[in-house]
Amino acid sequence: MAMAGGAAACPPELIAFGHRLADAAGAAIRPLYRVPIAIDAKSDLSPVTAADRAAEAAMRREIATHYPAHGVVGEEFGTSRPEADYVWVLDPIDGTKSFITGKPLFGTLIGLTHRGHAVLGIMDQPISGERWVGAAGRPTTLNGAVARTRACPDLARAVLFTTAIERLPERSRAAFARLQGAVALTQYSADCYAVGLLAIGFADLVVEDDVQPYDYMALIPIVEGAGGLMTDWQGRSLGLTGDGSMLAAGDAASHRAAVEALSG
Amino acid sequence: MAMAGGAAACPPELIAFGHRLADAAGAAIRPLYRVPIAIDAKSDLSPVTAADRAAEAAMRREIATHYPAHGVVGEEFGTSRPEADYVWVLDPIDGTKSFITGKPLFGTLIGLTHRGHAVLGIMDQPISGERWVGAAGRPTTLNGAVARTRACPDLARAVLFTTAIERLPERSRAAFARLQGAVALTQYSADCYAVGLLAIGFADLVVEDDVQPYDYMALIPIVEGAGGLMTDWQGRSLGLTGDGSMLAAGDAASHRAAVEALSG
Repeated sequence: MAMAGGAAACPPELIAFGHRLADAAGAAIRPLYRVPIAIDAKSDLSPVTAADRAAEAAMRREIATHYPAHGVVGEEFGTSRPEADYVWVLDPIDGTKSFITGKPLFGTLIGLTHRGHAVLGIMDQPISGERWVGAAGRPTTLNGAVARTRACPDLARAVLFTTAIERLPERSRAAFARLQGAVALTQYSADCYAVGLLAIGFADLVVEDDVQPYDYMALIPIVEGAGGLMTDWQGRSLGLTGDGSMLAAGDAASHRAAVEALSG
Repeated sequence: MAMAGGAAACPPELIAFGHRLADAAGAAIRPLYRVPIAIDAKSDLSPVTAADRAAEAAMRREIATHYPAHGVVGEEFGTSRPEADYVWVLDPIDGTKSFITGKPLFGTLIGLTHRGHAVLGIMDQPISGERWVGAAGRPTTLNGAVARTRACPDLARAVLFTTAIERLPERSRAAFARLQGAVALTQYSADCYAVGLLAIGFADLVVEDDVQPYDYMALIPIVEGAGGLMTDWQGRSLGLTGDGSMLAAGDAASHRAAVEALSG
């Protein structure tokens, strides 16, 4: 179980420290945003890779300095001390395709687990200056204002987000098509920002597959603290291991209906 | 021919007036952004409709006051004096699906034609504060800084944007699939913002179909003034009438290759 409801409250000092990590990541990323890219340079020196690495390295330095006993799982530099009580789960740039196309809707994801339970999640948008924060036992906020999902009792009225159909593995496209056929509107290419929109009541479902813990761990407390649910496509809690599928829903009824549609 | 190259220069006072229209539209739109929507209220009182109408009405008031002899073609309130020398072509909110989902990537499009030639185009993003301006005889700018498309001589390295596959009419999906199969990356759901990214060298192709003059007229001077090309899928100039298809390219070689792919 990784539900915030079952998790201990997140100590305020760790929430404050999460903000510090987001600040450090944003400072590393912003100078590399919209730096011209030669489109034939797909090397490791590309701005997105440089920004990804610089941001994760900056966060890891902060953690090593202030909480050396904590574990870290990061997209760029792997896993350290996964057995620690507290483990930070970091995706320095979620939405690299937005980043490389100069589109501002990419975010830094900072999750914190306590004995396997997600207790803190921050989604920072370094260009727009929007920051979503979810912490076990507290309401989710967007730039300090309380965020709530909206009611959506009827799937036929739901707004669904996914990154792109072709981003979904072949095996899950039929299931996705069933869900897409049941909703009012599908929108694409928003990555983690879509979950932020769900948390403030402007989207109803976000569905991805073939994702990693650093893609969703930070989003769990954000969604749950806003009144929503975050599971895999079968409705099971998300943890550090899983089948790679992810379903965020703002409303329990549309969550149930989405699980049904996705499982055929 | 609607190419900026063939058009008279745009009088500076009309460029300044275009900014005034964009300011008026933004002031009408911003208070309605992220106003909670009941998802079952698809009536004419929805925030997007209210914002669309308020923004177009504000621009039409300015035009009626300062340039009463000018024509207007608008998405919401139709056509007045289309035979006038100068005709303003207005889309108050391009990207209504972004607007209703609280995503900031929608824009106000303000085009101006002189005897049928597009001589001025403004794409204003009222939330991010970004404003692209293209005027015949001048370089395109983004918030005052000169904008240039990037070289992309090889389609296999191109970044392609379209709003959504399902937004394309059935008849044009095979052509689109050919193009998509030839490029490096396809991105979705950015509407007019995609053309802005092309104009600053972060995207190479933008393809839409079944669009109206108010969807593309403002974009012509922006793309051409940045060094790109804007035509229909067959490479023909765009005007107030056409087949509804639209192709923006940052580079003449990838434009040629895209026309070839789209026409089979």
